[in-house]
Amino acid sequence: MTEQNIRDDKKLNILLFSCDYDKALAALILANTARSIDMAVTVFCAFWGLCLIRDPETFTLEKKSSLEKAFGLLTAKGPEELPLSRMNMSGLGRMMLEKMMGDDKTPRLFDFLKESRDSGVRFYACKLSAETMGIKKEELLPEVEIMTAEDYLKDALSADIKLFI
Amino acid sequence: MTEQNIRDDKKLNILLFSCDYDKALAALILANTARSIDMAVTVFCAFWGLCLIRDPETFTLEKKSSLEKAFGLLTAKGPEELPLSRMNMSGLGRMMLEKMMGDDKTPRLFDFLKESRDSGVRFYACKLSAETMGIKKEELLPEVEIMTAEDYLKDALSADIKLFI
Amino acid sequence: MTEQNIRDDKKLNILLFSCDYDKALAALILANTARSIDMAVTVFCAFWGLCLIRDPETFTLEKKSSLEKAFGLLTAKGPEELPLSRMNMSGLGRMMLEKMMGDDKTPRLFDFLKESRDSGVRFYACKLSAETMGIKKEELLPEVEIMTAEDYLKDALSADIKLFI
Repeated sequence: MTEQNIRDDKKLNILLFSCDYDKALAALILANTARSIDMAVTVFCAFWGLCLIRDPETFTLEKKSSLEKAFGLLTAKGPEELPLSRMNMSGLGRMMLEKMMGDDKTPRLFDFLKESRDSGVRFYACKLSAETMGIKKEELLPEVEIMTAEDYLKDALSADIKLFI
Repeated sequence: MTEQNIRDDKKLNILLFSCDYDKALAALILANTARSIDMAVTVFCAFWGLCLIRDPETFTLEKKSSLEKAFGLLTAKGPEELPLSRMNMSGLGRMMLEKMMGDDKTPRLFDFLKESRDSGVRFYACKLSAETMGIKKEELLPEVEIMTAEDYLKDALSADIKLFI
Repeated sequence: MTEQNIRDDKKLNILLFSCDYDKALAALILANTARSIDMAVTVFCAFWGLCLIRDPETFTLEKKSSLEKAFGLLTAKGPEELPLSRMNMSGLGRMMLEKMMGDDKTPRLFDFLKESRDSGVRFYACKLSAETMGIKKEELLPEVEIMTAEDYLKDALSADIKLFI
């Protein structure tokens, strides 16, 4: 393991495509850890990844087509509603993972998300994804900004680590 | 967001492993957007990702083992046949996503693929994957070239953004 | 394809999150190919990726909570126990993929893993993941070292290609 100094101009850029509970957890752990060593962190939430940054307080069915309503209701509405990726997990569930993490005093996803927001991780919502899913800016966490795919690429070009999760 | 100039020597390299409709869509949107800002783009299709670049016109069952035939028939044969990744989507389907995208005038996967091909995105098929799945060069889109994993790594080394999708 | 010389100071860093058979296979093929052109390779196994580097010989149920026991028994215990990612694969299975690979004289996952270990790929286990899943160091392959997320980020910063699989 190299013991290089981490300078504060290093940057982590995550494209969060998934809304699986475990993948969102992995993304937030990486984001929070990167902040703890003074790396800048961008999390660009696209497609299902938008679910992580929806604001449960402001979710609305108004002015949506019936398809958009169905989509909104069937997909998760906040960090604690995310499903677990199902790989080899039939018979186990998020509850079990949470229980085990609780035993180890490891915080839950909601706490990881709060830590990310408090520590300066910048969250962006993919413009095209938000439009496609009928999610309006007011339905996202207050500090979230909308970003195009072009903006994402430019941000990623300036980052040292880029991951698609 | 940094407003750096994008020079035409910047490159995006995508290893497309999945053949989920939504992930293929994400890959193509990134590829097309990168081309629109003059980045070079390589999409290396491996494993299930090969499904995206199969030519529906030339799919054949000749000279295949029965296992290869079954594999060919059961996996998707072109961009419109790809399944949706299933995360939290039980009860929803690709049709719904397409419908919503249609309402927003967002093109379907087939159109995205055409745009990629027209705009100079270079598609490669993983040699080992093609051999394993019994897919011959003639069954791929005409311009697709075969590439080894070593070629992929060399190409990725020269790219500025590398993503595994 | 650029024909650049590969210098032995080039590095590939893989964060293996999944324990799907096909994704683990992809990770090992990339790792082995990178070693064959003298790249250094780090594989950081987190979450389900830990399954790849569990030692089937030393798996134990002792000193585990009942939840940890259930988790250990239900998740895979070694490379040949990994499930296939299910994308569009209903009706096909790992057996079929293995059969086809066997026909082409392509080695199975176990052999790929042995090749990786013999050729100097460095495998690390994510500390938080191991603690959460109740997996002890003795239950991992002997040469595997424990690594924190911070260590991972520092290692990734020094790598030329970083992939999340």
